[in-house]
Amino acid sequence: MSLIVHKYGGTSMGSVERIQNVARRVAKWHEAGHQVVVVPSAMSGETNRLLGLAKEISPQPDARELDMLASTGEQASSSLLAMALISQGVPARSYTGWQVPVRTDSSFTKARIKSIDDARIRSDLESGRVVIVTGFQGIDDDGNITTLGRGGSDTSAVAVAAAMGAAECLIFTDVDGVYTTDPRVVPEARRMSVISFEEMMEMASLGSKVLQIRSVEFAGKYRVPVRVLSSLTDPLIPLEEEMASGTLITFEEDQKMEAAVVSGIAFSRDEAKVTLLAVPDTPGVAYSILGPVAAANIDVDMILQNQSVQGTTDFSFTVNRNDFARTLDLLNNQIGPAVGAGQIVSDDKVCKVSIVGIGMRSHVGVASLMFRTLSEEGINIQMISTSEIKTSVIINDKYMELAVRALHKAFGLDSENGQVAKP
Amino acid sequence: MSLIVHKYGGTSMGSVERIQNVARRVAKWHEAGHQVVVVPSAMSGETNRLLGLAKEISPQPDARELDMLASTGEQASSSLLAMALISQGVPARSYTGWQVPVRTDSSFTKARIKSIDDARIRSDLESGRVVIVTGFQGIDDDGNITTLGRGGSDTSAVAVAAAMGAAECLIFTDVDGVYTTDPRVVPEARRMSVISFEEMMEMASLGSKVLQIRSVEFAGKYRVPVRVLSSLTDPLIPLEEEMASGTLITFEEDQKMEAAVVSGIAFSRDEAKVTLLAVPDTPGVAYSILGPVAAANIDVDMILQNQSVQGTTDFSFTVNRNDFARTLDLLNNQIGPAVGAGQIVSDDKVCKVSIVGIGMRSHVGVASLMFRTLSEEGINIQMISTSEIKTSVIINDKYMELAVRALHKAFGLDSENGQVAKP
Repeated sequence: MSLIVHKYGGTSMGSVERIQNVARRVAKWHEAGHQVVVVPSAMSGETNRLLGLAKEISPQPDARELDMLASTGEQASSSLLAMALISQGVPARSYTGWQVPVRTDSSFTKARIKSIDDARIRSDLESGRVVIVTGFQGIDDDGNITTLGRGGSDTSAVAVAAAMGAAECLIFTDVDGVYTTDPRVVPEARRMSVISFEEMMEMASLGSKVLQIRSVEFAGKYRVPVRVLSSLTDPLIPLEEEMASGTLITFEEDQKMEAAVVSGIAFSRDEAKVTLLAVPDTPGVAYSILGPVAAANIDVDMILQNQSVQGTTDFSFTVNRNDFARTLDLLNNQIGPAVGAGQIVSDDKVCKVSIVGIGMRSHVGVASLMFRTLSEEGINIQMISTSEIKTSVIINDKYMELAVRALHKAFGLDSENGQVAKP
Repeated sequence: MSLIVHKYGGTSMGSVERIQNVARRVAKWHEAGHQVVVVPSAMSGETNRLLGLAKEISPQPDARELDMLASTGEQASSSLLAMALISQGVPARSYTGWQVPVRTDSSFTKARIKSIDDARIRSDLESGRVVIVTGFQGIDDDGNITTLGRGGSDTSAVAVAAAMGAAECLIFTDVDGVYTTDPRVVPEARRMSVISFEEMMEMASLGSKVLQIRSVEFAGKYRVPVRVLSSLTDPLIPLEEEMASGTLITFEEDQKMEAAVVSGIAFSRDEAKVTLLAVPDTPGVAYSILGPVAAANIDVDMILQNQSVQGTTDFSFTVNRNDFARTLDLLNNQIGPAVGAGQIVSDDKVCKVSIVGIGMRSHVGVASLMFRTLSEEGINIQMISTSEIKTSVIINDKYMELAVRALHKAFGLDSENGQVAKP
């Protein structure tokens, strides 16, 4: 049959009972004749418990040692899952990142996978075992344990699937797929049975938390078919039914039956906006502003520079709200004086709302329908940023839910057949 | 200065505050110019928590996966200790068993150390770092994680000290040394400043829980000077004072100033006794009885076979009380009928009390003083077993405390200068 990779998140692995349910689901796939590699996260709460201990020890714990510590969570959950499978009569074996080995660079706490040796896994699969590989972790060239950062188990699973040439990578999670938008905000939100890789990239980077963005990048790079589906169904649900559930991330656009112009509405409240007014517009001013920000390890999202007027320009960008205080501090005390900005204004009560859809490539007027919809709701747009398949706006965050609901309706996502209202 | 190995037990590592105290103590040694390797146990309670999860998953969890699971406890505590040292300004690095590597055989859950590669540790020490090595664990020839069994961190520490040629191995624990007997039973029990290796072997195997017996074996094999001392003192206690505290296990008998004939009284309540009466005394009968017991993985302690009378003999042995039911079952249903025993009698209300002392080698009459003392207290002796430096008796367990107190007094261990009452 096929080689299938399963990934289970922390909630799915959150208790002994849940681990036994995961084992039942995996056993079902194994008994159907599939070769199964399972990548589990740590039991929910465990990573936070460990990092909490580290923070008590030191406000800035050593990064190498943090990875030594954090990697134990997945090692424990993986061995527990192996025990559960074995006790259910399924031969199984768990491997840590270094045992596989999953080779990474040496960027502790946010390492990137360089290669995965599949020999050990393959030999176990061929002898009939289920193989469990700890998510989230690897080993660098010096033999140090590394971790991939939050949500890294998704990336591990996709990377293992890529290395093994798996038929599909099933990401089991506590939602049953990717939705047109967050159902907690728009009850009419619908699950997409298929989403294109590009759209998923935008959805993940724009704040949809279903999949870690690096796992989507990995899936794209190696063209791994990824399916997001629920681990909360009956573990013995028939295989065919399970394979048809959730949301498939596809690379073949014609597979996408629901050819809506806009596929989904993404949003994020973790935004803050800063603007330097009346900056003398000299060559290199953007670098003078953003260089120190990057050096302080602050991620900048949207960047906007207006047309120069009388030799000065206004320069705005957005950062994660967690970095807002540090960013302001840098601007007021260092960057502002250095570039000769007239004034610095800021707002951390903003949010980002985005429409995403591959159909936007070939449809004009999509953005203008977005702007009209927001205007009809009396929502002022503060910044706009576009790419080929998405348009994002920054607005006052008190309007976020209103904007998402209005856009979801305007682009026809409420209706069952997802027909877009023609712009 | 010197290369010193420190080992800290689970209680010493039991909380963030305690880990920080361990770091202060280690920092003191490091700042005094010593090269320090630290072997920590898991935080107290952690190993039990993990094994509890495993037991919930399966009554008989897979041994390989148990080791994957259990080894995470020491990995976590080691990295936390490294963070604490680094945050106190002491360069430090933690290594798991496989990173060192500590090579073991493949007996999961009770592996034995085969070799320790000291290159990585030594290079870190030479660059001024404190090196932390996870206790309790290693790696087998197939790259599987193994653990050394309960108390294995003592063995790890002594083995690291042996491999590195350390000047001393300091076992920090929640008692301040090895006592003439358990102070909870005999308030007059005194700490020994020095104990011979042979005596420590007997004390450890006879039920004194201060050190795991395999760690003592290791110390003996490689002649590693081991000191048992308290981790509950002020971590900044002067170095000279600390080095003079606790109990030193020595290989040089003339170092032992307190040349008492009997050094200590050991005891154990976990005993059970079985006897096969009127067994036809044919060659090989001992093996016919004990072979099946060993095959059932039951450890036999004392063995006694009486003089044959009229072609039959009585055969007694003791086992751990936990194995009593299984042993009786074997005897009644398998061994007894096979060897033609007349009757099987048993008693699980017995205990073992032992006197230990290197002086016994050259003093006659030590055992008889023991027997006289017990007889004066009206305590009946059920079995006797002797070695060159210990005499053990099995008695009714209700007399245990009485016997220990009486012997402690009779052999002069109550008095400060430990003078033995001449037999």
